[in-house]
Amino acid sequence: MRTHYCGHLNISNLGQTVTLCGWAHRRRDHGGVIFIDLRDREGLVQVVCAPDREESFKIAESVRNEFVLRISGRVRRRPEGSSNSNISSGEIEVLCHEIEVLNTALTPPFQLDDENLSENVRLSHRVVDLRRPQMQKNLMLRYKTAMAFRRFLDSKGFIDIETPMLTKSTPEGARDYLVPSRVHAGEFFALPQSPQLFKQMLMVAGFDRYYQITKCFRDEDLRADRQPEFTQVDIETSFMDEEQIMSLMEELLRTVFKEVLGTNLPNPFPRISHTEAMSRFGSDKPDMRVTLEITDVTDAVRDVAFKVFSVPANQANGRVAALLIPGGGAFTRGEIDEYTKFVGIYGARGLAYIKVNDVTQLNETGLQSPIVKNLNEAALKIIMDRTGAKNGDLIFFGADSAKIVNDALGALRTKIGHEKNYVSGAEWTPLWVVDFPMFEYDEEAKRWQACHHPFTAPKDEHLHLLESNPGSCMAKAYDIVLNGWELGGGSVRIHKEEIQSLVFRALKIDKEEAGLKFGFLLDALQYGAPPHGGLAFGLDRIVTMMSGSESIRDVIAFPKTQRAQCLLTHAPSSVDEKQLHELHIRLRQKVQTTVEVSKE
Amino acid sequence: MRTHYCGHLNISNLGQTVTLCGWAHRRRDHGGVIFIDLRDREGLVQVVCAPDREESFKIAESVRNEFVLRISGRVRRRPEGSSNSNISSGEIEVLCHEIEVLNTALTPPFQLDDENLSENVRLSHRVVDLRRPQMQKNLMLRYKTAMAFRRFLDSKGFIDIETPMLTKSTPEGARDYLVPSRVHAGEFFALPQSPQLFKQMLMVAGFDRYYQITKCFRDEDLRADRQPEFTQVDIETSFMDEEQIMSLMEELLRTVFKEVLGTNLPNPFPRISHTEAMSRFGSDKPDMRVTLEITDVTDAVRDVAFKVFSVPANQANGRVAALLIPGGGAFTRGEIDEYTKFVGIYGARGLAYIKVNDVTQLNETGLQSPIVKNLNEAALKIIMDRTGAKNGDLIFFGADSAKIVNDALGALRTKIGHEKNYVSGAEWTPLWVVDFPMFEYDEEAKRWQACHHPFTAPKDEHLHLLESNPGSCMAKAYDIVLNGWELGGGSVRIHKEEIQSLVFRALKIDKEEAGLKFGFLLDALQYGAPPHGGLAFGLDRIVTMMSGSESIRDVIAFPKTQRAQCLLTHAPSSVDEKQLHELHIRLRQKVQTTVEVSKE
Repeated sequence: MRTHYCGHLNISNLGQTVTLCGWAHRRRDHGGVIFIDLRDREGLVQVVCAPDREESFKIAESVRNEFVLRISGRVRRRPEGSSNSNISSGEIEVLCHEIEVLNTALTPPFQLDDENLSENVRLSHRVVDLRRPQMQKNLMLRYKTAMAFRRFLDSKGFIDIETPMLTKSTPEGARDYLVPSRVHAGEFFALPQSPQLFKQMLMVAGFDRYYQITKCFRDEDLRADRQPEFTQVDIETSFMDEEQIMSLMEELLRTVFKEVLGTNLPNPFPRISHTEAMSRFGSDKPDMRVTLEITDVTDAVRDVAFKVFSVPANQANGRVAALLIPGGGAFTRGEIDEYTKFVGIYGARGLAYIKVNDVTQLNETGLQSPIVKNLNEAALKIIMDRTGAKNGDLIFFGADSAKIVNDALGALRTKIGHEKNYVSGAEWTPLWVVDFPMFEYDEEAKRWQACHHPFTAPKDEHLHLLESNPGSCMAKAYDIVLNGWELGGGSVRIHKEEIQSLVFRALKIDKEEAGLKFGFLLDALQYGAPPHGGLAFGLDRIVTMMSGSESIRDVIAFPKTQRAQCLLTHAPSSVDEKQLHELHIRLRQKVQTTVEVSKE
Repeated sequence: MRTHYCGHLNISNLGQTVTLCGWAHRRRDHGGVIFIDLRDREGLVQVVCAPDREESFKIAESVRNEFVLRISGRVRRRPEGSSNSNISSGEIEVLCHEIEVLNTALTPPFQLDDENLSENVRLSHRVVDLRRPQMQKNLMLRYKTAMAFRRFLDSKGFIDIETPMLTKSTPEGARDYLVPSRVHAGEFFALPQSPQLFKQMLMVAGFDRYYQITKCFRDEDLRADRQPEFTQVDIETSFMDEEQIMSLMEELLRTVFKEVLGTNLPNPFPRISHTEAMSRFGSDKPDMRVTLEITDVTDAVRDVAFKVFSVPANQANGRVAALLIPGGGAFTRGEIDEYTKFVGIYGARGLAYIKVNDVTQLNETGLQSPIVKNLNEAALKIIMDRTGAKNGDLIFFGADSAKIVNDALGALRTKIGHEKNYVSGAEWTPLWVVDFPMFEYDEEAKRWQACHHPFTAPKDEHLHLLESNPGSCMAKAYDIVLNGWELGGGSVRIHKEEIQSLVFRALKIDKEEAGLKFGFLLDALQYGAPPHGGLAFGLDRIVTMMSGSESIRDVIAFPKTQRAQCLLTHAPSSVDEKQLHELHIRLRQKVQTTVEVSKE
């Protein structure tokens, strides 16, 4: 129907007769002539309808915003002084010969260039919202990114193998989405939280190198960067150790960023241990653009009079740490109050600080702070030395359980870093976080939980700790972090059944339970499983970062709200009783629950 | 961990020292030497372990089938007379220097080269089953095919956009898989039967050219070539008419077959109207490799004495048709009995036939058949003329409702064609079936149903028939058929809201219902929808055909059985009461149903 995309026309098409299809982005009358900015996915071009072509002029007069048009005409140079350098077709315009209205349009619910739309309005009218050039760009970028992943993986011999969407519920980790079976009354499928077990079985089956760009599902309460269904670039390989996998994954990310954004990521990516990341940045996904660091001073304040410090410093899980802000002495009282409020979100009960006026005077003269009088000189000296504080600096303190201190100071570090420009200037700061513990202790359940998942291999030299000291057993696991976001994580997996059984035992999963839940994996491990490992990237997050979007909902065509609803189609919705009947389920209503409680 | 894939080694690697990883496919001792066929996804290579390397020889002695090994050694020519031309490494072998057992293996549940496995055994031990070279080839072919689709579509400016998996239930067409919502008590998501409405909305949003290789779901009782979840190559474009779409889709299939199989499909694909396909082949997806044809003789037998013919010939939906088998006069009585039984599957109550001994004698002498005496000469003449019967031929007849006649003779045509070699010799016979009716009458529901789906555009010249005569209104729809399988189907869609409303009215979907179910689409059509259309290919079927597999389960890594179960993971399964509680549902059990019936 057309010869060119609107957005592809430029000065090189001068003099050509073209046919275009697109939307009337804007129409204006000027000096008896009608100008239509015609839009398609590639961009805009200006169409000029002059009154001397009566028929087409008449049609042009009827055109409203968002009408769908087909236009034929000749490309000519815009008159002197009227070119528009913002668009690639800005030097030319199309003199309209013929115009056809392919479809009319109601007045759109909002202007496409309105930047102040509520997300609810945008999601309710998502079809119109998706016409906005930014949304067009985001989804194009998403496609380019996914294809760049595919091309790289294809070139390295990875093959895409589809794993099931209707799978088995294994109530480990997050909550499953369930799908009632019609054929098997009372039974349910689960939507996959990840293809983890299937990809491991594909390795045992000998496919050697697998990938899949696939939907995963978690029925959890949603945070800003979560969706009930999300897309994972899932990768697994046999016969590679963690060094080789990490090196290949780095190369993959460098290639994707180069192809899509033209950006050079560092080579190699820096690495940091999980322990060091927590200690220096209060986070297992530190934003390395920020130059601020956290310094541990727990040992220095065990004996001070200031109970806020000394109590947690003497507790098993307590921590006292300092965040040095060079030049932060200039912060106002109001700013410090705001930061105090901010760390409250993370459970911190206050935000102690010292303004360093004269680092040579370790007292209330040199150090301006209500807490200095309750800290002894030895402690103050260690604090100044370790943080490297200079005159004019500010030191914030966190003192609580290690978790609260890390969460609070980690978040504060990032906030101040970006707000006050304590950044290195690097645009992209990828980072491997390694040396994760195998397990973390669940105080509530009084047992060890897997830090990654129960199929992660322990480090060879820590195998003996699985039974004797699970807490100090480290895993062959690695997370890839970019600018403070976890982009993906992976590990070398257990490929021997006897080690898998040891890990299940450490997790207090007994033989029967293991067999019931993961019997097929344990079986597979016995029939000749190769050494294997992999990684999964969160595609939504990667594209959100690459496109500079504020929300992952801006890189998903039809996302759900934070209440897990689609405002466009109104899903979820109620369904016919007949459907429920066929699925052997009924709704659990209040009245029924009350009446039936004795029968359950 | 390795320098080469086993299956890549050949005579060009002579003299090289290589390291290989793989599975012990077979181990045998011969003349004091151990031979191990080492297997990886690329193929086999023979490894020779000689007793002079004591340590590795000892390890080799411990190796059993399916052990995972790492072997280093030197590539050498096999001794004279012992080369194996069946494998690409057949001229060489690897003299083992070092061998490492990466993992042991239990004796596999079956031999990988056992060709007589039941499907239940294969699916229960799918991980081992997937190691079989045929399954490895099938899934590789599937990947290559999907990538060929992607490359072509990418080169034509189509972009992959993901549509939701958790969507809205619209009880049209097949039965939905439902997903209970936790956040919204009593409400449900549905898994998509296809991304139809979303891809249309993407066209309205201006994405211009869309594709997606995605899972679709139908909760129907399964036939041999169906799965609860199946994969569709889903395509949609704006600003193209049906001719352009069909031409592009042909080019796509030609490209895919050429790239993957090296096959040249015809250019252009032949086309046939739906009416003609039914009339000549008794099927809307005729296998064009078969040269037999069906001839209509309904009009010729309206007045004959033979009631089996004259009654259906005089009924509104009746049909009498002939299937000529050249040289079929030689069929035995037993064969004809078998075919009679066969058509019974399709509801035919018998299979009348005439053996043509002498076509010039239109009586019981020239035509050998119990029915000839009840057919008059005029009828017999028309039958002989129309079918073009010659001496020695056989004519089968179907006489019943058109549906039964078409199903029975259509199936018989294909069966005899392949069994008795009435085939053209063409390996691949693609065919477009076009000119579908918009609607078919549902006798049970006493209303018109959409033949394709309610979003298919009527032919422009038939628009006026939508209200006056829906039965004769034809659609801008097209199916692509290959060797008797429907590979895909599509249409130009309705892009004007007023026509969509007319179609809903013809389908007796009133405004309220339409708004409730498809309001978001009707909305979208009003805000400037471009002309658009598309097609969806069934990837599982295409790959099944391309790989020459007998079942689509052979081209899916982890398929469900015909009872919709996964024998490997035992999904579906029962779930915790807690999970159901969170989802606001309970099981509908016999006892509860009885007790509560009064409360519903």
